[in-house]
Amino acid sequence: MTGSNAPVALPDALVSRLTALLGEHFTANASVCGHHGGGGMRHPNLPPQAVAFPATTDEVAAVVRLCAEFRVPVVPFGAGTSLECHVGAVAGGVSLDLSRMNRVLRVSAEDFDCTVEAGVTRMALNTYLRDTGLFFPVDPGVDATLGGMSATRASGTTTVRYGGMRENVMALTVVTADGQVIRTAGRARKSSAGYDLTHLFVGSEGTLGVITEVTLRLHPVPEAVAAAVCAFPSAGAAVSTVIEALQSGLAPARAEYLDAVQMGAVNTAFDLDYAVADSLFLEFHGDPESVRSQARAFGELATANGGSDFRWETEPEGRDRLWRARHQAGFAALSLRPGAVPWSTDVCVPISRLAECVVETRADLADTPFPGTMLGHVGDGNFHCILLLNLDDPDEMAAAAEFDARLIRRALAMDGTCTGEHGIGLGKQAALVHELGDAVDVMRSIKRALDPHGLMNPGKIFSAA
Amino acid sequence: MTGSNAPVALPDALVSRLTALLGEHFTANASVCGHHGGGGMRHPNLPPQAVAFPATTDEVAAVVRLCAEFRVPVVPFGAGTSLECHVGAVAGGVSLDLSRMNRVLRVSAEDFDCTVEAGVTRMALNTYLRDTGLFFPVDPGVDATLGGMSATRASGTTTVRYGGMRENVMALTVVTADGQVIRTAGRARKSSAGYDLTHLFVGSEGTLGVITEVTLRLHPVPEAVAAAVCAFPSAGAAVSTVIEALQSGLAPARAEYLDAVQMGAVNTAFDLDYAVADSLFLEFHGDPESVRSQARAFGELATANGGSDFRWETEPEGRDRLWRARHQAGFAALSLRPGAVPWSTDVCVPISRLAECVVETRADLADTPFPGTMLGHVGDGNFHCILLLNLDDPDEMAAAAEFDARLIRRALAMDGTCTGEHGIGLGKQAALVHELGDAVDVMRSIKRALDPHGLMNPGKIFSAA
Repeated sequence: MTGSNAPVALPDALVSRLTALLGEHFTANASVCGHHGGGGMRHPNLPPQAVAFPATTDEVAAVVRLCAEFRVPVVPFGAGTSLECHVGAVAGGVSLDLSRMNRVLRVSAEDFDCTVEAGVTRMALNTYLRDTGLFFPVDPGVDATLGGMSATRASGTTTVRYGGMRENVMALTVVTADGQVIRTAGRARKSSAGYDLTHLFVGSEGTLGVITEVTLRLHPVPEAVAAAVCAFPSAGAAVSTVIEALQSGLAPARAEYLDAVQMGAVNTAFDLDYAVADSLFLEFHGDPESVRSQARAFGELATANGGSDFRWETEPEGRDRLWRARHQAGFAALSLRPGAVPWSTDVCVPISRLAECVVETRADLADTPFPGTMLGHVGDGNFHCILLLNLDDPDEMAAAAEFDARLIRRALAMDGTCTGEHGIGLGKQAALVHELGDAVDVMRSIKRALDPHGLMNPGKIFSAA
Repeated sequence: MTGSNAPVALPDALVSRLTALLGEHFTANASVCGHHGGGGMRHPNLPPQAVAFPATTDEVAAVVRLCAEFRVPVVPFGAGTSLECHVGAVAGGVSLDLSRMNRVLRVSAEDFDCTVEAGVTRMALNTYLRDTGLFFPVDPGVDATLGGMSATRASGTTTVRYGGMRENVMALTVVTADGQVIRTAGRARKSSAGYDLTHLFVGSEGTLGVITEVTLRLHPVPEAVAAAVCAFPSAGAAVSTVIEALQSGLAPARAEYLDAVQMGAVNTAFDLDYAVADSLFLEFHGDPESVRSQARAFGELATANGGSDFRWETEPEGRDRLWRARHQAGFAALSLRPGAVPWSTDVCVPISRLAECVVETRADLADTPFPGTMLGHVGDGNFHCILLLNLDDPDEMAAAAEFDARLIRRALAMDGTCTGEHGIGLGKQAALVHELGDAVDVMRSIKRALDPHGLMNPGKIFSAA
């Protein structure tokens, strides 16, 4: 296997057998392949040679076994919303698009869990659940598939209260590199039965096998919800308010920071009139009384840190407007430099170091030759800089890479991580080694043991060699 | 390497080099070795040929490298409180006793975390933390080491509220089979940086490497605590009360079931006068108002299920008396048949199936030729039967094994697990295969990759062959 993406044709015999298996659900159409190349952000598009659309775990296993027989790479594909080119076909091969595996298989309201096929998106699941009194909280913003969110260990705006995929995946069905179908766990709330394969596959980015079914924890829909935006005199004041709130036992369901530049972009893009200042977007869940008391206690901490201009939204329409502004912040940021390509950084640090990390990074960003915004899930210690870049300007791209490298060094020096939620993919492989050193050798040993021919999403997490 | 525990002497050259390394902290004394054999319950004592007492991670690495050079097994040893013979030297070798690694390395009150050496016990940690306003909640009853609790993925009475080791270990320092020292993660609350090695080593039972340091989540000491015992007309009524409480959003910190036989034993052993009935031991944590309102809401559910004779304890002395009765229930049970050997079962099922599983098991236990009690962490779906056995009666031992096999089949048919918290060790290897099938092949592949010579606690989880 080579590390290049040269458009080598697939073996004819493999194409015939995959066509016999899947009929019209297997294609080498160039446009379809082009949509499965994972390009975007600073990453090139790396299309596969063909795309398979299996409808069942058994079909996935059959595709994996056939590709293994011909030593052809398999690249699992969910919704293609990754920011680190997780689905790019670095070494060519077959993209395994799971979008037809879109059934909710079971829901247990009594056990607060459900099992879905990997291609179900988080929004589709929550629509399905709407009459049960339960919901699935993990919210990365985009409408990713639950298989993809599992594979990348996704999290997002509600992780501060409900945890991310690490905390909310109970069990997986996985097709291994040799085409076996395994289930990693049952539905008991806890178990000490052998190695924790569930957590090994959560975050493995398709490099150890293909996740085809996911058993998830669900949570009761809160009786009352209140959201707010609040302006602060500085980044440090905004972040410190969240940290003090967590340390005093408050449990916001969302606690998002947006810097003043980002707030200006949001106002422009969505015709809003929020204060152009370092701001927090907040949400509290609970019974009406606890939501009121949490909001009051948070308000007191915010005021003590110079917070002002609280705008509360308790009705669904107002909250949707508020969170659309947050979730589409990346889109809004692009208005600052039309035609620019965004690059999102993703460090996460212990919350005791967060204010310092944000303030230093804010100053560093101000010195770069390109515009950029800052925002993040500050209750988790995780924040992003959205760098707005001209891909055709090598000096600018080099400056962006240096900025990101400084940011990662800063976070690692604080015992943090190079990626809170976006994953390694193609973009953070050197940073992973910087962060975990010899532990990456242990990961490589596991990769070689479970995928000896290097056919499962090759070139991700580690180089393909 | 053989599967036997034949007392083959260690190579002289290895003994000299280990003695040069550790001096008096390396010994082949028969009595010391005998105390490191992991016997108890239904398991034989399997002493190592020697015991090493390293004081640092570097010394652990040196011992592991030396043993690897001579192809001698290494068996990590914490407090020796495992119930499934995790520390027995199945194939002989060196027991690596971590009791000298007993330092708390750091505590961050701001981040709610700490790092300890593997030999620190959970009670020693909580004593150390007593002035910080924080505590470590995972409570398996015995005073196990935090390294051992990590290695066996322990949980216990507070898991229903705070999670077990799976949820509370943030990062580990591990000595791998080839003597490398790795750290599995930083201290960020979340990360998507590569495979989740932390969770792979949590629950690996010493078979993949030696855990030498553990970074743990801490929790704020609750402002108010109230505990109670309540009697019910049946096992089903007691268990259903807990399930209904969880489903209605109550979050007890502890919710323990003890059957009538066990309650009688507790009364006798500790000179108490609780009702001899199916009972719940409960605890609520929070601010004084929320503890009162949770207790009131729980009381209403209990009364609706026929619960009566509530005895509340809000002062530390009363709570300690109450929980001593629960935590030493196994000791109390022995009074039912002096001289008997206890065998504790450990299934865990989804809570929707728990009442059914407990009631069926209760009936099955009544038909066995030996006495036994039932108790468990019913908020997690996990319960134990303590079988009181005459080890010298093969018919009785066979009946006990058949009872356990029926119990495990019953739990697995309900999508549960053969072990909620005790682990596989020597005792549940066949059940593991029954539970997870081909997934065990994946575990074996990982074992071979990370421990190619089979020297790390051989014979545990899988047979040594």
